[in-house]
Amino acid sequence: MNTPELANSVRLTGDAVEILDRRVYPFERRWVRCTTSDEVAQAIKDMVTQSSGPLFATTAAMVLAARAVRHRPRDLALKELRAAGDRLVATRPTNNHIRDAVAAILAELREGDLAEQVEAAAAAHDQAYRDRSAALGRHAAGLLPDGSTVLTHCWADYYLIATVQAAQEQGKYLEFVCTETRPYLQGARLTAATLVEMGYEPTLITDGMAAAALANGVADVALVAADRVTLDGHVINKVGTLGVALAANRFGLPFHALVQRPDPQAPTPADVVIEHRDPDEVLHVLGVRTAAHGVTGHYPAFDTTPPDLVTRIVTEKGAFRPENVKEAL
Amino acid sequence: MNTPELANSVRLTGDAVEILDRRVYPFERRWVRCTTSDEVAQAIKDMVTQSSGPLFATTAAMVLAARAVRHRPRDLALKELRAAGDRLVATRPTNNHIRDAVAAILAELREGDLAEQVEAAAAAHDQAYRDRSAALGRHAAGLLPDGSTVLTHCWADYYLIATVQAAQEQGKYLEFVCTETRPYLQGARLTAATLVEMGYEPTLITDGMAAAALANGVADVALVAADRVTLDGHVINKVGTLGVALAANRFGLPFHALVQRPDPQAPTPADVVIEHRDPDEVLHVLGVRTAAHGVTGHYPAFDTTPPDLVTRIVTEKGAFRPENVKEAL
Repeated sequence: MNTPELANSVRLTGDAVEILDRRVYPFERRWVRCTTSDEVAQAIKDMVTQSSGPLFATTAAMVLAARAVRHRPRDLALKELRAAGDRLVATRPTNNHIRDAVAAILAELREGDLAEQVEAAAAAHDQAYRDRSAALGRHAAGLLPDGSTVLTHCWADYYLIATVQAAQEQGKYLEFVCTETRPYLQGARLTAATLVEMGYEPTLITDGMAAAALANGVADVALVAADRVTLDGHVINKVGTLGVALAANRFGLPFHALVQRPDPQAPTPADVVIEHRDPDEVLHVLGVRTAAHGVTGHYPAFDTTPPDLVTRIVTEKGAFRPENVKEAL
Repeated sequence: MNTPELANSVRLTGDAVEILDRRVYPFERRWVRCTTSDEVAQAIKDMVTQSSGPLFATTAAMVLAARAVRHRPRDLALKELRAAGDRLVATRPTNNHIRDAVAAILAELREGDLAEQVEAAAAAHDQAYRDRSAALGRHAAGLLPDGSTVLTHCWADYYLIATVQAAQEQGKYLEFVCTETRPYLQGARLTAATLVEMGYEPTLITDGMAAAALANGVADVALVAADRVTLDGHVINKVGTLGVALAANRFGLPFHALVQRPDPQAPTPADVVIEHRDPDEVLHVLGVRTAAHGVTGHYPAFDTTPPDLVTRIVTEKGAFRPENVKEAL
């Protein structure tokens, strides 16, 4: 089975964190080298990595931060480590991976060498994420009929990789239709490249074609990740997801969202901050100006899909109807 | 009142038809010069112009064709003129502007100088189209509440220009949110540039943001053109329209489609050919590769919005519920 390149896109070395630059992948294989946790935070803010990338970048950044303060008095070192964590959490507000990774590492700290403890906690957090993703992937693959064509939106990262691996293990034949996912083209670049690396020949459509693809039998099940799922079953994911869900619902097709677990800190969508990114990104593609002068961009990075449009929320513990997703906690 | 540049984007000269190249507008003002009707047909096929552009290009091309055969025996000349018309009609199957323009000109031919007759018929057809668009625009503007923010998809051309002019005459203040409309970016380029020329500051969103914009109050009415409306009230328009209509319906907002009249030759969507264009266009933006290698593009140029999602179809004769659109004939 082929392991796609994006499955290992953050590397911790003796003195740095190297992050595969998803802004240019797969056209260029460029690694951004960060020697401090603040440089990692800046890289996350600049979208060098996204989706599950910030989780691995954050745990690695916490290792860098701990190494930098390991010889200071413990109180001061802990204070600086927490501050570094806060700056990482502040980079992107909608997904809770960063917040949870920082909290998990800080919760593991006991007496002894700070850097060693953080390194062990970081490795454990990374591995647990991969294990939970693998469990999620098996549940997701179980929902996909053999021979179905799966519509993806944006890039579901580990969840997608794990789902595809599980489907292959289950002997299921799948095809894929990917939205390109403007403005960053995660679908055209990350999802498409990864599926090619895993042996598929995905079909690419523009974001505006998703409804027609579901209406006309070009795809027959929609599968997306969720950056956040609230306890009342709302799915917060890359902007455009709501349109995919509306179309799937209208044409009687399943719409599944993948998340390891709902966010216990988010009872409703009112508890989730929707990030707005630099509007200029809407006016360009890969650095090329695409819009007439005199216009203003508007870039909400995420949208909110209400529970009645969601067929199943697939978690590490199984697939749940959105109204029952609390059971996954 | 400012007349935007795209209001006059086809010029008939003594020996040629000059067409403003909408593939590069507004970044470049490039005119494609065609000296035969077949060169015009090729330009239409190559998307040098689109929306109402092919109508004006077709009537001008028929003048070129008539001039080329004016000194031949009448039977032969007519036969060649009809063949030239057929080749124009064959360029793009979904919109009926070209078919109707060719038929209208051929129906006007009497004894006498062929070129003069075609030129007069072409000018009359062009003017009638402008007049009917102006009537449509007044009806459309009447539907838009003062102070509303209008979501556009793709480029409604004369219908949009006429609607905005009528709204200005009616003293209505409007704002605009435009989808960029991949792959050709008609929204980001043609609609946005034209609205800027007419004195507005449009907001641009990617196609995937339309549902969120309608969900969150960023826009409060959706207004699109239709390439074709069937007698049973289906709206065939640029792919992505269906998603806009689904979202407007879900969030209780009006969705209006503009067309001078429904197509009497299309009782149902089964009577309309949906054009599929070069899939490679989905893999590029403005000539820049945007997709990973190993993928295949899929490019249905239009989608079909069912009547229950349509609030009003605005024609030259007024605004109709989709179930009553036959009354506009």
